[in-house]
Amino acid sequence: MTKLLPSESDILYRLADTLESRLPQNGGDPSSSYSAKLLARGPDAFLKKIGEEATELVMAAKDNAADRIVYEMADLWFHSLVALAHYKLRPEDVLRELARREGTSGLAEKAARNEAK
Amino acid sequence: MTKLLPSESDILYRLADTLESRLPQNGGDPSSSYSAKLLARGPDAFLKKIGEEATELVMAAKDNAADRIVYEMADLWFHSLVALAHYKLRPEDVLRELARREGTSGLAEKAARNEAK
Amino acid sequence: MTKLLPSESDILYRLADTLESRLPQNGGDPSSSYSAKLLARGPDAFLKKIGEEATELVMAAKDNAADRIVYEMADLWFHSLVALAHYKLRPEDVLRELARREGTSGLAEKAARNEAK
Amino acid sequence: MTKLLPSESDILYRLADTLESRLPQNGGDPSSSYSAKLLARGPDAFLKKIGEEATELVMAAKDNAADRIVYEMADLWFHSLVALAHYKLRPEDVLRELARREGTSGLAEKAARNEAK
Repeated sequence: MTKLLPSESDILYRLADTLESRLPQNGGDPSSSYSAKLLARGPDAFLKKIGEEATELVMAAKDNAADRIVYEMADLWFHSLVALAHYKLRPEDVLRELARREGTSGLAEKAARNEAK
Repeated sequence: MTKLLPSESDILYRLADTLESRLPQNGGDPSSSYSAKLLARGPDAFLKKIGEEATELVMAAKDNAADRIVYEMADLWFHSLVALAHYKLRPEDVLRELARREGTSGLAEKAARNEAK
Repeated sequence: MTKLLPSESDILYRLADTLESRLPQNGGDPSSSYSAKLLARGPDAFLKKIGEEATELVMAAKDNAADRIVYEMADLWFHSLVALAHYKLRPEDVLRELARREGTSGLAEKAARNEAK
Repeated sequence: MTKLLPSESDILYRLADTLESRLPQNGGDPSSSYSAKLLARGPDAFLKKIGEEATELVMAAKDNAADRIVYEMADLWFHSLVALAHYKLRPEDVLRELARREGTSGLAEKAARNEAK
Protein backbone atom coordinates (compact mmCIF):
# COMPACT_ATOMS: atom_id res chain seq x y z
CA MET A 1 0.00 0.00 0.00
CA THR A 2 1.40 3.35 -0.98
CA LYS A 3 1.67 6.10 1.60
CA LEU A 4 -1.24 8.51 1.90
CA LEU A 5 -0.76 12.02 0.57
CA PRO A 6 -1.14 14.65 3.31
CA SER A 7 -4.43 15.67 1.67
CA GLU A 8 -5.66 12.10 2.10
CA SER A 9 -4.73 11.67 5.75
CA ASP A 10 -6.78 14.74 6.63
CA ILE A 11 -9.84 13.55 4.77
CA LEU A 12 -11.94 12.86 7.88
CA TYR A 13 -11.50 16.41 9.16
CA ARG A 14 -12.04 17.92 5.73
CA LEU A 15 -15.23 15.90 5.16
CA ALA A 16 -16.44 16.96 8.60
CA ASP A 17 -15.88 20.62 7.64
CA THR A 18 -17.77 20.14 4.39
CA LEU A 19 -20.64 18.37 6.14
CA GLU A 20 -20.94 21.18 8.68
CA SER A 21 -21.42 23.60 5.80
CA ARG A 22 -24.20 21.36 4.48
CA LEU A 23 -26.28 21.60 7.65
CA PRO A 24 -29.67 23.30 7.05
CA GLN A 25 -28.82 26.03 9.56
CA ASN A 26 -25.59 26.74 7.65
CA GLY A 27 -27.34 27.11 4.32
CA GLY A 28 -26.90 23.57 2.98
CA ASP A 29 -28.92 23.13 -0.20
CA PRO A 30 -30.82 19.83 -0.30
CA SER A 31 -31.42 20.19 -4.01
CA SER A 32 -27.75 20.26 -4.95
CA SER A 33 -26.04 18.04 -2.39
CA TYR A 34 -26.67 14.47 -1.27
CA SER A 35 -25.42 15.13 2.24
CA ALA A 36 -27.39 18.38 2.57
CA LYS A 37 -30.49 16.39 1.60
CA LEU A 38 -29.76 13.73 4.25
CA LEU A 39 -29.11 16.39 6.90
CA ALA A 40 -32.29 18.27 6.01
CA ARG A 41 -34.38 15.12 6.30
CA GLY A 42 -33.14 14.51 9.83
CA PRO A 43 -31.71 11.61 11.81
CA ASP A 44 -33.83 8.72 10.53
CA ALA A 45 -32.60 9.37 6.98
CA PHE A 46 -28.90 8.99 7.77
CA LEU A 47 -29.27 6.51 10.66
CA LYS A 48 -31.11 4.17 8.32
CA LYS A 49 -28.11 4.40 5.98
CA ILE A 50 -25.79 3.38 8.84
CA GLY A 51 -27.79 0.18 9.32
CA GLU A 52 -27.91 -0.42 5.60
CA GLU A 53 -24.21 0.19 4.97
CA ALA A 54 -23.23 -1.99 7.93
CA THR A 55 -25.20 -4.83 6.35
CA GLU A 56 -23.61 -4.24 2.96
CA LEU A 57 -20.18 -4.25 4.58
CA VAL A 58 -20.95 -7.58 6.25
CA MET A 59 -22.07 -9.04 2.90
CA ALA A 60 -18.95 -7.77 1.10
CA ALA A 61 -16.81 -9.30 3.84
CA LYS A 62 -18.61 -12.66 3.60
CA ASP A 63 -17.82 -12.55 -0.14
CA ASN A 64 -14.16 -11.86 0.69
CA ALA A 65 -14.31 -9.02 -1.84
CA ALA A 66 -11.57 -6.55 -0.89
CA ASP A 67 -12.70 -3.75 -3.22
CA ARG A 68 -16.27 -3.89 -1.98
CA ILE A 69 -15.14 -4.07 1.67
CA VAL A 70 -13.22 -0.81 1.20
CA TYR A 71 -16.10 0.75 -0.72
CA GLU A 72 -18.80 -0.21 1.79
CA MET A 73 -16.65 0.76 4.76
CA ALA A 74 -16.11 4.17 3.14
CA ASP A 75 -19.91 4.44 2.84
CA LEU A 76 -20.34 3.43 6.49
CA TRP A 77 -17.75 5.90 7.76
CA PHE A 78 -19.13 8.64 5.50
CA HIS A 79 -22.62 8.25 6.95
CA SER A 80 -21.05 8.14 10.43
CA LEU A 81 -19.58 11.57 9.66
CA VAL A 82 -23.00 12.82 8.53
CA ALA A 83 -24.40 11.73 11.89
CA LEU A 84 -21.56 13.46 13.75
CA ALA A 85 -22.25 16.71 11.86
CA HIS A 86 -25.93 16.60 12.81
CA TYR A 87 -25.15 16.05 16.49
CA LYS A 88 -22.44 18.77 16.56
CA LEU A 89 -19.71 16.21 17.06
CA ARG A 90 -16.43 15.74 15.25
CA PRO A 91 -14.42 12.75 13.99
CA GLU A 92 -11.74 14.01 16.37
CA ASP A 93 -14.07 13.06 19.25
CA VAL A 94 -14.20 9.48 18.01
CA LEU A 95 -10.46 9.30 17.37
CA ARG A 96 -9.77 10.71 20.83
CA GLU A 97 -12.04 8.05 22.37
CA LEU A 98 -10.11 5.37 20.49
CA ALA A 99 -6.81 6.89 21.67
CA ARG A 100 -8.09 7.13 25.23
CA ARG A 101 -8.85 3.42 25.34
CA GLU A 102 -5.40 2.65 24.02
CA GLY A 103 -3.67 5.16 26.25
CA THR A 104 -5.16 4.52 29.62
CA SER A 105 -5.68 0.81 29.74
CA GLY A 106 -5.27 -0.70 26.32
CA LEU A 107 -7.41 -3.23 24.58
CA ALA A 108 -7.65 -5.35 27.70
CA GLU A 109 -9.95 -2.72 29.17
CA LYS A 110 -12.04 -2.80 26.04
CA ALA A 111 -12.23 -6.55 26.25
CA ALA A 112 -13.42 -6.35 29.82
CA ARG A 113 -16.16 -3.92 28.91
CA ASN A 114 -17.24 -6.00 25.97
CA GLU A 115 -17.36 -9.23 27.92
CA ALA A 116 -19.48 -7.48 30.49
CA LYS A 117 -22.11 -6.42 27.96
CA MET B 1 -13.22 20.87 20.88
CA THR B 2 -9.55 20.92 21.69
CA LYS B 3 -7.06 20.04 18.99
CA LEU B 4 -5.93 16.44 18.75
CA LEU B 5 -2.45 15.61 19.91
CA PRO B 6 -0.30 14.14 17.11
CA SER B 7 -0.49 10.78 18.87
CA GLU B 8 -4.27 10.96 18.66
CA SER B 9 -4.52 11.87 14.97
CA ASP B 10 -2.52 8.77 14.07
CA ILE B 11 -4.65 6.47 16.13
CA LEU B 12 -6.25 4.67 13.17
CA TYR B 13 -2.88 3.69 11.75
CA ARG B 14 -1.51 2.73 15.14
CA LEU B 15 -4.53 0.57 15.94
CA ALA B 16 -4.19 -1.06 12.53
CA ASP B 17 -0.55 -1.91 13.32
CA THR B 18 -1.55 -3.36 16.69
CA LEU B 19 -4.35 -5.39 15.14
CA GLU B 20 -2.01 -6.84 12.53
CA SER B 21 0.20 -8.09 15.36
CA ARG B 22 -2.85 -9.77 16.89
CA LEU B 23 -3.60 -11.90 13.82
CA PRO B 24 -3.27 -15.64 14.53
CA GLN B 25 -0.54 -15.97 11.87
CA ASN B 26 1.42 -13.20 13.60
CA GLY B 27 1.28 -14.83 17.01
CA GLY B 28 -1.76 -13.05 18.44
CA ASP B 29 -2.74 -14.65 21.73
CA PRO B 30 -6.53 -15.16 22.05
CA SER B 31 -6.22 -15.71 25.79
CA SER B 32 -4.73 -12.31 26.54
CA SER B 33 -6.26 -9.99 23.95
CA TYR B 34 -9.86 -9.24 23.01
CA SER B 35 -8.94 -8.46 19.41
CA ALA B 36 -6.71 -11.54 19.07
CA LYS B 37 -9.68 -13.60 20.26
CA LEU B 38 -11.99 -12.00 17.68
CA LEU B 39 -9.43 -12.51 14.91
CA ALA B 40 -8.85 -16.13 15.91
CA ARG B 41 -12.58 -16.86 15.83
CA GLY B 42 -12.84 -15.62 12.27
CA PRO B 43 -15.09 -13.26 10.31
CA ASP B 44 -18.50 -14.07 11.81
CA ALA B 45 -17.25 -13.04 15.27
CA PHE B 46 -16.25 -9.51 14.30
CA LEU B 47 -18.81 -9.01 11.52
CA LYS B 48 -21.56 -9.74 14.03
CA LYS B 49 -20.09 -6.98 16.20
CA ILE B 50 -20.29 -4.54 13.27
CA GLY B 51 -24.03 -5.18 12.99
CA GLU B 52 -24.43 -4.94 16.75
CA GLU B 53 -22.44 -1.74 17.16
CA ALA B 54 -24.24 -0.11 14.22
CA THR B 55 -27.53 -0.80 15.99
CA GLU B 56 -26.20 0.57 19.28
CA LEU B 57 -25.00 3.69 17.49
CA VAL B 58 -28.46 4.18 15.98
CA MET B 59 -30.06 3.83 19.43
CA ALA B 60 -27.61 6.30 21.03
CA ALA B 61 -28.36 8.76 18.22
CA LYS B 62 -32.13 8.36 18.68
CA ASP B 63 -31.54 9.20 22.36
CA ASN B 64 -29.56 12.29 21.31
CA ALA B 65 -26.87 11.15 23.75
CA ALA B 66 -23.60 12.71 22.58
CA ASP B 67 -21.33 10.69 24.85
CA ARG B 68 -22.86 7.39 23.82
CA ILE B 69 -22.79 8.38 20.12
CA VAL B 70 -19.02 8.94 20.38
CA TYR B 71 -18.57 5.75 22.38
CA GLU B 72 -20.60 3.51 20.07
CA MET B 73 -19.05 5.04 16.94
CA ALA B 74 -15.61 4.29 18.41
CA ASP B 75 -16.78 0.70 18.91
CA LEU B 76 -18.08 0.56 15.32
CA TRP B 77 -14.88 1.96 13.84
CA PHE B 78 -12.75 -0.28 16.06
CA HIS B 79 -14.49 -3.41 14.81
CA SER B 80 -14.19 -2.04 11.26
CA LEU B 81 -10.42 -1.95 11.83
CA VAL B 82 -10.51 -5.54 13.09
CA ALA B 83 -12.22 -6.54 9.84
CA LEU B 84 -9.65 -4.63 7.79
CA ALA B 85 -6.81 -6.45 9.59
CA HIS B 86 -8.35 -9.84 8.84
CA TYR B 87 -8.75 -9.02 5.14
CA LYS B 88 -5.23 -7.57 4.83
CA LEU B 89 -6.60 -4.08 4.28
CA ARG B 90 -5.68 -0.80 5.95
CA PRO B 91 -7.62 2.23 7.20
CA GLU B 92 -5.57 4.15 4.64
CA ASP B 93 -7.48 2.25 1.93
CA VAL B 94 -10.78 3.52 3.30
CA LEU B 95 -9.48 7.08 3.73
CA ARG B 96 -8.10 7.05 0.21
CA GLU B 97 -11.49 5.90 -1.12
CA LEU B 98 -13.15 8.78 0.74
CA ALA B 99 -10.54 11.20 -0.66
CA ARG B 100 -10.98 9.80 -4.16
CA ARG B 101 -14.71 10.50 -4.09
CA GLU B 102 -14.03 14.02 -2.95
CA GLY B 103 -11.14 14.53 -5.33
CA THR B 104 -12.42 13.24 -8.60
CA SER B 105 -16.03 14.14 -8.61
CA GLY B 106 -17.09 15.27 -5.20
CA LEU B 107 -20.13 14.33 -3.24
CA ALA B 108 -22.32 14.81 -6.27
CA GLU B 109 -20.92 11.60 -7.70
CA LYS B 110 -21.61 9.84 -4.43
CA ALA B 111 -25.15 11.16 -4.48
CA ALA B 112 -25.65 9.84 -7.99
CA ARG B 113 -24.42 6.40 -7.04
CA ASN B 114 -26.58 6.31 -3.96
CA GLU B 115 -29.71 7.43 -5.77
CA ALA B 116 -29.11 4.70 -8.30
CA LYS B 117 -29.01 1.94 -5.68
CA MET C 1 -41.68 -30.50 4.82
CA THR C 2 -44.13 -32.21 7.09
CA LYS C 3 -47.32 -30.44 8.08
CA LEU C 4 -47.28 -28.40 11.27
CA LEU C 5 -49.11 -29.77 14.25
CA PRO C 6 -51.90 -27.45 15.44
CA SER C 7 -49.80 -26.64 18.49
CA GLU C 8 -47.02 -25.49 16.18
CA SER C 9 -49.12 -23.23 13.96
CA ASP C 10 -50.26 -21.29 17.01
CA ILE C 11 -46.76 -20.77 18.32
CA LEU C 12 -46.61 -17.03 17.62
CA TYR C 13 -49.76 -16.40 19.68
CA ARG C 14 -48.65 -18.72 22.44
CA LEU C 15 -45.22 -17.13 22.68
CA ALA C 16 -46.89 -13.71 22.77
CA ASP C 17 -49.04 -14.87 25.69
CA THR C 18 -45.99 -16.18 27.52
CA LEU C 19 -44.04 -12.99 26.88
CA GLU C 20 -46.90 -10.89 28.24
CA SER C 21 -46.70 -12.86 31.47
CA ARG C 22 -42.97 -12.09 31.62
CA LEU C 23 -43.46 -8.31 31.61
CA PRO C 24 -42.21 -6.66 34.84
CA GLN C 25 -45.68 -5.32 35.56
CA ASN C 26 -47.10 -8.84 35.25
CA GLY C 27 -44.63 -10.35 37.71
CA GLY C 28 -42.01 -11.60 35.25
CA ASP C 29 -38.94 -12.78 37.15
CA PRO C 30 -35.67 -11.60 35.57
CA SER C 31 -33.67 -14.09 37.58
CA SER C 32 -35.43 -17.15 36.18
CA SER C 33 -36.34 -16.20 32.62
CA TYR C 34 -34.28 -14.87 29.71
CA SER C 35 -37.21 -12.96 28.26
CA ALA C 36 -38.23 -11.51 31.64
CA LYS C 37 -34.66 -10.27 31.99
CA LEU C 38 -34.74 -8.64 28.54
CA LEU C 39 -38.12 -7.04 29.26
CA ALA C 40 -36.95 -5.76 32.65
CA ARG C 41 -33.88 -4.16 31.11
CA GLY C 42 -36.01 -2.21 28.67
CA PRO C 43 -36.02 -1.50 24.93
CA ASP C 44 -32.29 -1.12 24.23
CA ALA C 45 -31.66 -4.66 25.48
CA PHE C 46 -34.03 -6.38 23.05
CA LEU C 47 -33.69 -3.86 20.20
CA LYS C 48 -29.96 -4.48 20.18
CA LYS C 49 -30.72 -8.18 19.79
CA ILE C 50 -32.89 -7.41 16.74
CA GLY C 51 -29.94 -5.72 15.05
CA GLU C 52 -27.63 -8.53 16.09
CA GLU C 53 -29.90 -11.36 14.98
CA ALA C 54 -30.60 -9.64 11.65
CA THR C 55 -26.84 -9.56 11.02
CA GLU C 56 -26.47 -13.21 12.01
CA LEU C 57 -29.32 -14.12 9.67
CA VAL C 58 -27.61 -12.29 6.82
CA MET C 59 -24.34 -14.15 7.53
CA ALA C 60 -26.10 -17.55 7.67
CA ALA C 61 -27.78 -16.74 4.36
CA LYS C 62 -24.48 -15.73 2.74
CA ASP C 63 -23.16 -19.13 3.86
CA ASN C 64 -26.19 -20.82 2.27
CA ALA C 65 -26.60 -22.72 5.54
CA ALA C 66 -30.26 -23.75 5.73
CA ASP C 67 -30.20 -24.90 9.36
CA ARG C 68 -28.59 -21.68 10.56
CA ILE C 69 -30.97 -19.57 8.43
CA VAL C 70 -33.93 -21.19 10.19
CA TYR C 71 -32.25 -20.89 13.58
CA GLU C 72 -31.28 -17.23 13.22
CA MET C 73 -34.65 -16.30 11.75
CA ALA C 74 -36.31 -17.95 14.76
CA ASP C 75 -34.08 -15.79 16.98
CA LEU C 76 -34.99 -12.68 14.98
CA TRP C 77 -38.73 -13.37 15.14
CA PHE C 78 -38.51 -14.29 18.83
CA HIS C 79 -36.92 -10.96 19.70
CA SER C 80 -39.50 -9.25 17.48
CA LEU C 81 -42.15 -10.83 19.71
CA VAL C 82 -40.33 -9.57 22.81
CA ALA C 83 -40.49 -6.04 21.36
CA LEU C 84 -44.21 -6.45 20.58
CA ALA C 85 -44.89 -7.50 24.18
CA HIS C 86 -43.11 -4.45 25.55
CA TYR C 87 -45.06 -2.09 23.30
CA LYS C 88 -48.40 -3.79 24.03
CA LEU C 89 -48.68 -5.08 20.51
CA ARG C 90 -49.42 -8.54 19.21
CA PRO C 91 -48.12 -10.73 16.39
CA GLU C 92 -51.69 -10.60 15.11
CA ASP C 93 -51.15 -6.89 14.43
CA VAL C 94 -48.20 -7.70 12.19
CA LEU C 95 -50.00 -10.55 10.44
CA ARG C 96 -53.02 -8.32 9.87
CA GLU C 97 -50.78 -5.66 8.33
CA LEU C 98 -49.30 -8.29 6.01
CA ALA C 99 -52.82 -9.48 5.11
CA ARG C 100 -53.98 -5.91 4.55
CA ARG C 101 -51.24 -5.28 2.02
CA GLU C 102 -52.17 -8.47 0.22
CA GLY C 103 -55.87 -7.88 0.50
CA THR C 104 -56.29 -4.30 -0.54
CA SER C 105 -53.71 -3.79 -3.22
CA GLY C 106 -51.30 -6.66 -3.28
CA LEU C 107 -47.57 -6.62 -3.56
CA ALA C 108 -47.69 -3.99 -6.26
CA GLU C 109 -48.65 -1.44 -3.63
CA LYS C 110 -45.78 -2.57 -1.46
CA ALA C 111 -43.42 -2.26 -4.38
CA ALA C 112 -44.60 1.27 -5.03
CA ARG C 113 -44.04 2.26 -1.43
CA ASN C 114 -40.61 0.73 -1.41
CA GLU C 115 -39.52 2.36 -4.65
CA ALA C 116 -40.61 5.68 -3.22
CA LYS C 117 -38.44 5.33 -0.15
CA MET D 1 -57.36 -6.32 19.48
CA THR D 2 -59.99 -8.01 17.38
CA LYS D 3 -59.59 -11.65 16.50
CA LEU D 4 -57.87 -12.48 13.23
CA LEU D 5 -60.01 -13.76 10.39
CA PRO D 6 -58.99 -17.26 9.29
CA SER D 7 -57.61 -15.72 6.09
CA GLU D 8 -55.37 -13.50 8.20
CA SER D 9 -53.95 -16.23 10.45
CA ASP D 10 -52.78 -18.12 7.37
CA ILE D 11 -51.09 -15.13 5.84
CA LEU D 12 -47.51 -16.38 6.39
CA TYR D 13 -48.21 -19.60 4.50
CA ARG D 14 -50.11 -17.81 1.77
CA LEU D 15 -47.35 -15.24 1.28
CA ALA D 16 -44.82 -18.08 1.16
CA ASP D 17 -46.86 -19.75 -1.61
CA THR D 18 -47.02 -16.48 -3.55
CA LEU D 19 -43.31 -15.88 -3.14
CA GLU D 20 -42.51 -19.37 -4.42
CA SER D 21 -44.43 -18.56 -7.57
CA ARG D 22 -42.33 -15.40 -7.97
CA LEU D 23 -39.02 -17.28 -8.08
CA PRO D 24 -37.21 -16.88 -11.42
CA GLN D 25 -37.31 -20.63 -12.01
CA ASN D 26 -41.08 -20.60 -11.49
CA GLY D 27 -41.68 -17.84 -14.01
CA GLY D 28 -41.69 -14.85 -11.67
CA ASP D 29 -41.75 -11.62 -13.70
CA PRO D 30 -39.34 -8.99 -12.33
CA SER D 31 -41.02 -6.28 -14.36
CA SER D 32 -44.42 -6.70 -12.74
CA SER D 33 -43.69 -7.77 -9.16
CA TYR D 34 -41.54 -6.25 -6.45
CA SER D 35 -40.77 -9.63 -4.90
CA ALA D 36 -40.00 -11.25 -8.27
CA LYS D 37 -37.53 -8.42 -8.87
CA LEU D 38 -35.86 -8.98 -5.49
CA LEU D 39 -35.68 -12.75 -6.07
CA ALA D 40 -34.25 -12.28 -9.57
CA ARG D 41 -31.53 -9.97 -8.27
CA GLY D 42 -30.37 -12.60 -5.79
CA PRO D 43 -29.54 -12.74 -2.08
CA ASP D 44 -27.75 -9.42 -1.59
CA ALA D 45 -30.85 -7.54 -2.75
CA PHE D 46 -33.18 -8.98 -0.13
CA LEU D 47 -30.59 -9.52 2.61
CA LYS D 48 -29.76 -5.83 2.42
CA LYS D 49 -33.45 -5.13 3.00
CA ILE D 50 -33.39 -7.30 6.15
CA GLY D 51 -30.62 -5.14 7.60
CA GLU D 52 -32.40 -1.98 6.55
CA GLU D 53 -35.82 -2.98 7.89
CA ALA D 54 -34.31 -4.14 11.19
CA THR D 55 -32.78 -0.68 11.60
CA GLU D 56 -36.09 1.01 10.73
CA LEU D 57 -37.86 -1.20 13.25
CA VAL D 58 -35.37 -0.20 15.94
CA MET D 59 -35.91 3.49 15.11
CA ALA D 60 -39.69 3.15 15.20
CA ALA D 61 -39.41 1.41 18.57
CA LYS D 62 -37.15 4.14 19.96
CA ASP D 63 -39.86 6.61 18.89
CA ASN D 64 -42.46 4.50 20.71
CA ALA D 65 -44.56 4.71 17.54
CA ALA D 66 -46.91 1.72 17.59
CA ASP D 67 -48.14 2.08 14.01
CA ARG D 68 -44.63 2.30 12.61
CA ILE D 69 -43.46 -0.62 14.78
CA VAL D 70 -46.16 -2.82 13.25
CA TYR D 71 -45.44 -1.49 9.77
CA GLU D 72 -41.66 -1.97 9.94
CA MET D 73 -42.00 -5.38 11.55
CA ALA D 74 -44.30 -6.41 8.71
CA ASP D 75 -41.59 -5.23 6.30
CA LEU D 76 -38.96 -7.19 8.21
CA TRP D 77 -41.00 -10.38 8.30
CA PHE D 78 -41.97 -9.96 4.64
CA HIS D 79 -38.34 -9.79 3.55
CA SER D 80 -37.61 -12.75 5.84
CA LEU D 81 -40.18 -14.69 3.83
CA VAL D 82 -38.51 -13.59 0.59
CA ALA D 83 -35.23 -15.02 1.91
CA LEU D 84 -36.95 -18.27 2.91
CA ALA D 85 -38.40 -18.64 -0.60
CA HIS D 86 -34.98 -18.19 -2.19
CA TYR D 87 -33.40 -20.82 0.07
CA LYS D 88 -36.27 -23.29 -0.43
CA LEU D 89 -37.38 -22.93 3.16
CA ARG D 90 -40.80 -22.26 4.64
CA PRO D 91 -42.17 -20.12 7.47
CA GLU D 92 -43.33 -23.42 8.93
CA ASP D 93 -39.65 -24.30 9.45
CA VAL D 94 -39.17 -21.18 11.55
CA LEU D 95 -42.38 -21.71 13.50
CA ARG D 96 -41.43 -25.33 14.16
CA GLU D 97 -38.03 -24.19 15.47
CA LEU D 98 -39.79 -21.75 17.81
CA ALA D 99 -42.16 -24.51 18.95
CA ARG D 100 -39.27 -26.92 19.43
CA ARG D 101 -37.51 -24.53 21.79
CA GLU D 102 -40.71 -24.14 23.77
CA GLY D 103 -41.56 -27.82 23.68
CA THR D 104 -38.32 -29.49 24.58
CA SER D 105 -36.75 -27.23 27.11
CA GLY D 106 -38.52 -23.93 27.16
CA LEU D 107 -37.08 -20.47 27.20
CA ALA D 108 -34.51 -21.47 29.79
CA GLU D 109 -32.69 -23.41 27.10
CA LYS D 110 -32.80 -20.39 24.85
CA ALA D 111 -31.45 -18.24 27.63
CA ALA D 112 -28.59 -20.64 28.18
CA ARG D 113 -27.69 -20.61 24.52
CA ASN D 114 -27.83 -16.85 24.39
CA GLU D 115 -25.72 -16.35 27.46
CA ALA D 116 -23.17 -18.67 25.95
CA LYS D 117 -22.87 -16.60 22.78
